[in-house]
Amino acid sequence: MRLVRLKAQAASGNLKLVEAEPRSPGPGEVLVRIRACSLNAHDSMVIGGLIPTADGRIPLSDGAGEVMAIGESVDAFKIGDAVVSTFFPAWFAGNPTKAVKRDIPGETIDGYASEFACRPAHHFTKAPAHSSYLESATLPCAGVTAWSGLMTHGQVKPGETVLVLGSGGVSLFALQFAKMVGARLIATSSSEDKLAQLQRLGADEVINYKECPAWGRKAKELTDGRGVDHVVEVGGPGTIMQSIEACRMGGHIAVIGVLTGFSGDISIPAIFSNQIRITGIQVGSRAEQASMIRAINANALKPVIGQVYPFEEINDAFADFDAGKSFGKACMEF
Amino acid sequence: MRLVRLKAQAASGNLKLVEAEPRSPGPGEVLVRIRACSLNAHDSMVIGGLIPTADGRIPLSDGAGEVMAIGESVDAFKIGDAVVSTFFPAWFAGNPTKAVKRDIPGETIDGYASEFACRPAHHFTKAPAHSSYLESATLPCAGVTAWSGLMTHGQVKPGETVLVLGSGGVSLFALQFAKMVGARLIATSSSEDKLAQLQRLGADEVINYKECPAWGRKAKELTDGRGVDHVVEVGGPGTIMQSIEACRMGGHIAVIGVLTGFSGDISIPAIFSNQIRITGIQVGSRAEQASMIRAINANALKPVIGQVYPFEEINDAFADFDAGKSFGKACMEF
Amino acid sequence: MRLVRLKAQAASGNLKLVEAEPRSPGPGEVLVRIRACSLNAHDSMVIGGLIPTADGRIPLSDGAGEVMAIGESVDAFKIGDAVVSTFFPAWFAGNPTKAVKRDIPGETIDGYASEFACRPAHHFTKAPAHSSYLESATLPCAGVTAWSGLMTHGQVKPGETVLVLGSGGVSLFALQFAKMVGARLIATSSSEDKLAQLQRLGADEVINYKECPAWGRKAKELTDGRGVDHVVEVGGPGTIMQSIEACRMGGHIAVIGVLTGFSGDISIPAIFSNQIRITGIQVGSRAEQASMIRAINANALKPVIGQVYPFEEINDAFADFDAGKSFGKACMEF
Amino acid sequence: MRLVRLKAQAASGNLKLVEAEPRSPGPGEVLVRIRACSLNAHDSMVIGGLIPTADGRIPLSDGAGEVMAIGESVDAFKIGDAVVSTFFPAWFAGNPTKAVKRDIPGETIDGYASEFACRPAHHFTKAPAHSSYLESATLPCAGVTAWSGLMTHGQVKPGETVLVLGSGGVSLFALQFAKMVGARLIATSSSEDKLAQLQRLGADEVINYKECPAWGRKAKELTDGRGVDHVVEVGGPGTIMQSIEACRMGGHIAVIGVLTGFSGDISIPAIFSNQIRITGIQVGSRAEQASMIRAINANALKPVIGQVYPFEEINDAFADFDAGKSFGKACMEF
Repeated sequence: MRLVRLKAQAASGNLKLVEAEPRSPGPGEVLVRIRACSLNAHDSMVIGGLIPTADGRIPLSDGAGEVMAIGESVDAFKIGDAVVSTFFPAWFAGNPTKAVKRDIPGETIDGYASEFACRPAHHFTKAPAHSSYLESATLPCAGVTAWSGLMTHGQVKPGETVLVLGSGGVSLFALQFAKMVGARLIATSSSEDKLAQLQRLGADEVINYKECPAWGRKAKELTDGRGVDHVVEVGGPGTIMQSIEACRMGGHIAVIGVLTGFSGDISIPAIFSNQIRITGIQVGSRAEQASMIRAINANALKPVIGQVYPFEEINDAFADFDAGKSFGKACMEF
Repeated sequence: MRLVRLKAQAASGNLKLVEAEPRSPGPGEVLVRIRACSLNAHDSMVIGGLIPTADGRIPLSDGAGEVMAIGESVDAFKIGDAVVSTFFPAWFAGNPTKAVKRDIPGETIDGYASEFACRPAHHFTKAPAHSSYLESATLPCAGVTAWSGLMTHGQVKPGETVLVLGSGGVSLFALQFAKMVGARLIATSSSEDKLAQLQRLGADEVINYKECPAWGRKAKELTDGRGVDHVVEVGGPGTIMQSIEACRMGGHIAVIGVLTGFSGDISIPAIFSNQIRITGIQVGSRAEQASMIRAINANALKPVIGQVYPFEEINDAFADFDAGKSFGKACMEF
Repeated sequence: MRLVRLKAQAASGNLKLVEAEPRSPGPGEVLVRIRACSLNAHDSMVIGGLIPTADGRIPLSDGAGEVMAIGESVDAFKIGDAVVSTFFPAWFAGNPTKAVKRDIPGETIDGYASEFACRPAHHFTKAPAHSSYLESATLPCAGVTAWSGLMTHGQVKPGETVLVLGSGGVSLFALQFAKMVGARLIATSSSEDKLAQLQRLGADEVINYKECPAWGRKAKELTDGRGVDHVVEVGGPGTIMQSIEACRMGGHIAVIGVLTGFSGDISIPAIFSNQIRITGIQVGSRAEQASMIRAINANALKPVIGQVYPFEEINDAFADFDAGKSFGKACMEF
Repeated sequence: MRLVRLKAQAASGNLKLVEAEPRSPGPGEVLVRIRACSLNAHDSMVIGGLIPTADGRIPLSDGAGEVMAIGESVDAFKIGDAVVSTFFPAWFAGNPTKAVKRDIPGETIDGYASEFACRPAHHFTKAPAHSSYLESATLPCAGVTAWSGLMTHGQVKPGETVLVLGSGGVSLFALQFAKMVGARLIATSSSEDKLAQLQRLGADEVINYKECPAWGRKAKELTDGRGVDHVVEVGGPGTIMQSIEACRMGGHIAVIGVLTGFSGDISIPAIFSNQIRITGIQVGSRAEQASMIRAINANALKPVIGQVYPFEEINDAFADFDAGKSFGKACMEF
């Protein structure tokens, strides 16, 4: 099989495919033929060295494929099952603990940039029933993050309003999940073209934040002055004050990303005088992935696929990904 | 104006319209021209004497109409607003207290079987933006009950499965809300005709409980053996054991009605060995009604209207209602 | 080592100690020298054949002891650690699933009536820091059940009132946890002697249910007519209607046991007109056991130990247990 | 009666008592003889002009006293009842709305710096059963804020660890509530004398933050490296990064105050990589005040009273309060 192993001194742009031999699954393990991976900011930071990893690590947290062989005492899957990886294999359900961070595929343990992966069975869940491998591969990081922010922490209800910032992977899933649950959806972008695409995906209202720098107040006006119920906050210091401005009294902000920088000036009285609830989200548990997949099955949801690359073009894939131009989840096929 | 006043010795079938003069709204009050009412089992029990009430009481808990005049210091409404009554005007939000039972229109205080009603402004919320008066009038009792059972107590998520029993008012709202929130919906009925109507409204699966007396197990099978996540239990002793049988481990049963009788033999080990959660629901708060109406607005939901009667035919309306033959919410127009 | 193995045809009273050789721990396993076990109704039903089990099964779900050896890749424990077993080793956290029922020590897998137990490390948690082995052994079934009922499902707050029925193992833990959390506690018993003991343990009010058959109403009166917030319901059909009567509007009943029989006549309108919340509890997860143990550590709580037997007297222990005369948790020492 | 009315141009230090005539209670109103008030930062900001108010406003949000007369249709109180004011009289229960901010005694409506107050009955709750007027007067702002932060939003459990910053009014209540609920309590101060007083009140661990500027990490170490479960954050920008550092994965920070300034540099990745939950708290609802008072009654809790001034010395009282030297809640007696 072919796979990618990172060198400690590696930088993006010089990932090389090497040959190796797949192992046979031991007790509790499954051998999965990986058919698709998706690209995430987390992967990019590992490959670029911003997040340290071990020498020889196989990158990429998100993979989907087909079970080729199963070891002893595996009853969750059978040969031929379509499966998808989980971001935190040791986080089964409930609240997170420090321990779940020990096992992150593509960072602290081997990931899925490999034609075959032999892993403990609990590193996978079943894939959605009617999804392609490409579609399934978009779910573990971006999909579960949006699900956790809106469903677990947000408990979004029909008729509430959700504000998503931009059109990155998490924002697109948040848009789709918000519409699935009967919520109203406001989306922002600086590109008229992307705003049009967001509307085609179901956004009820869109705001061009370049033309409307006070987009927080604008979003609030779009709710008759009541304020939005939830913000999926991917911007960080450059956007969070506008996100707070957009919120209703008691509104919820799922803090997920830092596209505008790591830290910045934040007003504390704005948080308590509006009784804002901020939840820091980092992906989610296996149980949340399973719930999300049930929802995808029941609603025949189609993840938004962006540019697709063959495995051999992994360097180009990350170069394009880092440039951030595509709409929809960038993926690789094997 | 014309209205109905119950006599202590009254029984259904002899309701008479009488003439009276509407009052002008005092401080904090509004005068509403009632344009439609809906009929509920609760009203029928009050009229029939099963639920005691005061001599001269105006019956009916659910009314919708237009604000004709407002008293001093009313800022929630203005003249011309379309409004709808609330079942528990003193239950603003949060958990119920005994005190909220003191004010139940049509039972402990005057209801809406009247061409005009002069009441404190907090006895109403705004009606849905695009609903007719008839549609709005279906909401306070049946709509809020279904909303509270599924949304407040059930916290239904997309991809979960909801089981509704029969096609009464609460069950139809539960069906519509479950589909609105992206859930799967299983419905039962003994009539093939009603099953077909339930499917047209969005039921994913239907079960004829006359042909399949073990409909609880059948519902569980329809979830690949996992069990349903929520049951909207309107049957009571004759259905609850099947409802428990239908549930997944940790499933939720919203107990709402007793169509099959008041009490009966229930197995306790079935409750704890499946870790079932049972919530007794009696309508809900003003805040829940407002949330439900936001959801109705956002999703342009149309309540299912059944037979509609002119106000003069209130006796016929209740005779038909008690016979239970209609599909959809029975209403009166003024 | 000595241990007990059940025969398929066995009945209580003829348990025999046999000799066997302990295994060495494999990867992920620990070898624990069991120093104490507690007795639970669940064990009694397995031994008596009411709950079926496999031939040769080692009974008892609750054991505490010392880690003697650890296998490869075990990092949760080290040699010498005091540990206590968990009732559902496969239930890590969050909501229950059917799968957690596959592994129940003393029923579907081997339990702890054995001088040594070699098990996967996740079958144990650390014991409380200052508890004896006897005290620790009382926790997995009765302690976690009370914790789950009051803390996870009840979310008991200081100043709320908790009603416990009788003085069985779960009721005593519920009493202690309720007082630990600043709640008021009402306890019932038919024995004046036990009522005095319950008061010594912290019960604020006690009711002799033999002298006061309407103890539900009595409990409600003891809350100035508001009703209790939580009932820990161990009686089942013979007590639940009084438990409902005791509750405040919106009150919570944790259904845990069936000391008065398996099924009986229950009034459904009493549930919904008081908006009662009933939660079926069957022990709880590993995360709940860990939370409970943190609480025991922080509050230096001492479980109430009843009669203690040497391992050799296991038959006498269960004979006395089934007669139900003791106050406090019956245990065995090795 | 004597009372204080603010002048638009007033500043602290020139409050004057003036004479006025109490009104008789109208329908729904009660006349309360105010016997004690407490001083809060909110009052100080209104008096000092930082929070704008109307000309002639009677300041102070927190008052306790005795019901002297009741108007028509008041059934919540009777003459002679000891009552205490609420901070948001229009916030009955459940989630906050913008509307609750319209009625804030001492800011948007008249407060309690007055020997008598004639107000709608729902502006008060019953006082704790065994508290003095002074003790009751400490509750509406500081007590309810701590209760809401820990109990409503934090859902603190026994055995969890709570970190409180300094020894202000909210922090002392948080300490007392945390101990009431069986939690561990870590407190900080820069004064050894205050640390000793915090320990006498029940703090399990104390940290002198002047000697230990990395008090966040220190607090985490005091939990064996797991991190605290809750922080009651009164410092704002100067402390919040240490508060985040102190937290366990998934920990909760109740953001309540800004003693160190209004805004500052905050790291967003620290929030999401530790999955921190931040809740902005601004006092709470009437239902929360009632729950807190039930807890105070059940646990005979004594609020910590600091310096007490006669009403005539209101200027001195605020001068001392603004200097911030006292330990315990500063109050005035009438």
